[in-house]
Amino acid sequence: MKIKRADDVEAKPVAEEGAEGVTIRLLVHEADGAPHFYMRQFDIAPGGHTARHAHDWEHEVYILAGRAAVWSGEGDRHAAAGDCLFVPGNEEHQFRNPGPDELKILCLVPKGSG
Amino acid sequence: MKIKRADDVEAKPVAEEGAEGVTIRLLVHEADGAPHFYMRQFDIAPGGHTARHAHDWEHEVYILAGRAAVWSGEGDRHAAAGDCLFVPGNEEHQFRNPGPDELKILCLVPKGSG
Repeated sequence: MKIKRADDVEAKPVAEEGAEGVTIRLLVHEADGAPHFYMRQFDIAPGGHTARHAHDWEHEVYILAGRAAVWSGEGDRHAAAGDCLFVPGNEEHQFRNPGPDELKILCLVPKGSG
Repeated sequence: MKIKRADDVEAKPVAEEGAEGVTIRLLVHEADGAPHFYMRQFDIAPGGHTARHAHDWEHEVYILAGRAAVWSGEGDRHAAAGDCLFVPGNEEHQFRNPGPDELKILCLVPKGSG
């Protein structure tokens, strides 16, 4: 069994074009021996956002802190700490932080994605 | 895309023998169309615990609130809100809540488990 403080896991800037003010931490990943899916934490600064993109794998998301404007084919929707989200494969999506606080989310993906 | 308040998802008592004071919410599951893995939330009352058991699938866990005593082959370890855990398949494990607050955890499992 592995136990880690999420805050102790290195936060790396997300370099994807279209992302601004976003870092990623690999909380439970291939290096931990995870065989089927991976847990990542994204921190998004006020005014920041992930890239608007689509891909063939799904996201399972839990919002740990802050507020989010979540764009999808259905337009912008609002979410906040304590919300969980399912983004199916091939649906365009983007997470933006309208502020004022940092937005922290868990975002899980299947092995072999990305 | 689906967005839900985790608190709005029905909390069902966990009936497994050896579990006490535990409820489960299926946050992102088969009914949501999740194709590869499932996000569940367990709430464990002070003094409560999950069953001590082992199974061939893994857990990826994030502690949302409270404190946990986590038993494994390595003995008891302590964890708290903001910690993430990886429990590999076939490792015996048990989550106990020493109190005083409610323990709330996300626990994700691959499809086909359980």
